Amino acid sequence: MLGNFSYCNPTKLYFGEDSLQYLNAELPKYGKNVVLIYGGGSIKKNGIYDDVVAYLEAAGKNVAEIPGVMPNPTLDKLYEGIKIARAHKADFLLAVGGGSVCDYAKALAVSVHCKEDPWDKYYLRFEEPDCEILPVGCVLTMVGTGSEMNAGAVITNTAARLKIGHVFADESIMPRFSILNPKFTMTLPHYQMVAGIYDIFSHICEQYFSGDDDNTSDYISEALLRSLIHSSRIANKDPQDYEARSNIMWTATWALNTLISRGKSTDWMVHMLGQAVGACTDATHGMTLAAVSLPYYRYIMPYGLHRFKRFAVNVWGIDPAGKTDEETALEGLKAMEAWMRELGLAMDISVLGANEDMLEQLADATRLLPGGYKALTRDEVIRIFKESLA
Amino acid sequence: MLGNFSYCNPTKLYFGEDSLQYLNAELPKYGKNVVLIYGGGSIKKNGIYDDVVAYLEAAGKNVAEIPGVMPNPTLDKLYEGIKIARAHKADFLLAVGGGSVCDYAKALAVSVHCKEDPWDKYYLRFEEPDCEILPVGCVLTMVGTGSEMNAGAVITNTAARLKIGHVFADESIMPRFSILNPKFTMTLPHYQMVAGIYDIFSHICEQYFSGDDDNTSDYISEALLRSLIHSSRIANKDPQDYEARSNIMWTATWALNTLISRGKSTDWMVHMLGQAVGACTDATHGMTLAAVSLPYYRYIMPYGLHRFKRFAVNVWGIDPAGKTDEETALEGLKAMEAWMRELGLAMDISVLGANEDMLEQLADATRLLPGGYKALTRDEVIRIFKESLA
Repeated sequence: MLGNFSYCNPTKLYFGEDSLQYLNAELPKYGKNVVLIYGGGSIKKNGIYDDVVAYLEAAGKNVAEIPGVMPNPTLDKLYEGIKIARAHKADFLLAVGGGSVCDYAKALAVSVHCKEDPWDKYYLRFEEPDCEILPVGCVLTMVGTGSEMNAGAVITNTAARLKIGHVFADESIMPRFSILNPKFTMTLPHYQMVAGIYDIFSHICEQYFSGDDDNTSDYISEALLRSLIHSSRIANKDPQDYEARSNIMWTATWALNTLISRGKSTDWMVHMLGQAVGACTDATHGMTLAAVSLPYYRYIMPYGLHRFKRFAVNVWGIDPAGKTDEETALEGLKAMEAWMRELGLAMDISVLGANEDMLEQLADATRLLPGGYKALTRDEVIRIFKESLA
Repeated sequence: MLGNFSYCNPTKLYFGEDSLQYLNAELPKYGKNVVLIYGGGSIKKNGIYDDVVAYLEAAGKNVAEIPGVMPNPTLDKLYEGIKIARAHKADFLLAVGGGSVCDYAKALAVSVHCKEDPWDKYYLRFEEPDCEILPVGCVLTMVGTGSEMNAGAVITNTAARLKIGHVFADESIMPRFSILNPKFTMTLPHYQMVAGIYDIFSHICEQYFSGDDDNTSDYISEALLRSLIHSSRIANKDPQDYEARSNIMWTATWALNTLISRGKSTDWMVHMLGQAVGACTDATHGMTLAAVSLPYYRYIMPYGLHRFKRFAVNVWGIDPAGKTDEETALEGLKAMEAWMRELGLAMDISVLGANEDMLEQLADATRLLPGGYKALTRDEVIRIFKESLA
């Protein structure tokens, strides 16, 4: 049932192939000192960097840069950014990139004026900021994380081999605006595109595989999954299909902006398992999720059979007539597997660089949550990682 | 396909049976002079009025009242409210009631400091406000309109027999916060409850029956319709079922807060026809929509057959095997009719007080929109009203 909850998501979204121009409307709302944050430099090749810099210049901004934000932003990179933002007396952080760059900008937004070590405060003690929070804007160039419309920020502590996400409660940490141009996502390699698609799929499943069967949120989750499956098949064959790429982009935003978790419990164990793989191998986030999902879902299926049956029928169109609930549920997971293979996702953690010797280390890096239908023990985590090996 | 669009909805929602207490968090954010707006006085019988007044007193507010906001708020009532709010130097408007009371509060919010006649400016010329806009908060006691999380406000000009809704573009006209307690909706008579449910259903259909078949928004619309149909059947039998009432309340909010219309065209002709019936008979809004829907949808079905087929399959679970698209689509409308009769909705406009002599007057009061799949002529409007008679 729908429990007590609050919902507030003030991020202003500008969507479409003409959306970058809205920087003209947004930039004047913030102070002069801007820190421009981006990743490996692909935005310099495809021209987005030049376009954004032109808007910043036209708005008379004083710009410092933090380039080189990596796919799994590290704590060391965060420390580096804090120094740059402080030296620049930053008024505003503009992230241009994918979810990692957006996540990094939000982590920086709560850290620049933080008097303590941000890792201890936010990622070990999961506290909320009690300092000034810098406003963040995003120009999204990669789809998947939903970071453009939420208050989450994942940071990896390489030394401690920990990849931890904090979803902040304060909505002022959400980006003030995000610019979503599906064309910006089209230069991405196929591997990154499908990894992003699976990240979206997993975000929805993490919120769907928990609770009873009456909640409006779960109906919306099924809709997002159906739309995503439909459009992903088109984009997989033709990555230049604007309609498919735009629907995927929009689905990604709504998959993780808190809507579909309202009033219900959630799971998030696929992310805990996948993030452990990410921390130990530095593999692409979406692929780590794909590689552990089926072993995990097959293992917990008996504990949430009603939901796995519903998943099969409502998401994958399995006809339940004349089948046991278990047979129907398993057919759903088979349909999911076929779709994953069609997209070319990582189907095991071996291809991502993990091996049998790393099982203990992977288990060490896995944060145990209550889970949606089953609280895993460490032994069960090891068993699932074992089954995730090729 | 998903066109260019923006999305911003900053309303903070507090949902659940414990939600009224959040007035303590919200009231201090606004000035001292509050205008409390409500309807026919039912909130005095069920205790909500006393509770709200206690929160206002605890927050040290100076309160004036506008009681007696009617189901179809009139322009005369708006003029009356403007005088009260100006005399009270209102800083904040608190609406306690259903969609009519929320709509009225928003119309008042843009009118108190408006130098022109608000009817001319907002409802005849559809302009945006260029004056100060008062902040609005809502405590919702009736479900259906979605007014608690949008910038729409319908006002009826009784003299001109016109009922017109303006959906403002400025998100600062959306309520700053809305308190959604499903228990507050449970004292409502069955007639009002099902009218509200049909209003929600119609809001979704107005946005669904337009455009092609790929848009994520339409998948979400189907999810909301499925959830609503599921919960409405439970609430129809047991109006005290908290789970059903809470899912209906949540669905109503998302049915009309702009999400499901993003990036696509919409229809809204059922509302144009229904509002004409409302303006001529003062019948309950949701019932006017119910009474004209099937004649309208049967008439436009051939122009959007692909979507009516999809509606039948994805919303009503009709098996399309071995049927023509038209047969499948018609079965969907039959399933919809059966559900409407199950709820006890008005199935014709005669029961609402309309008759054959009013056809021209009804057509005069109907605003013609481009429509989702077919632009109606005046003759077609008269034909649909004729078929809506018993």
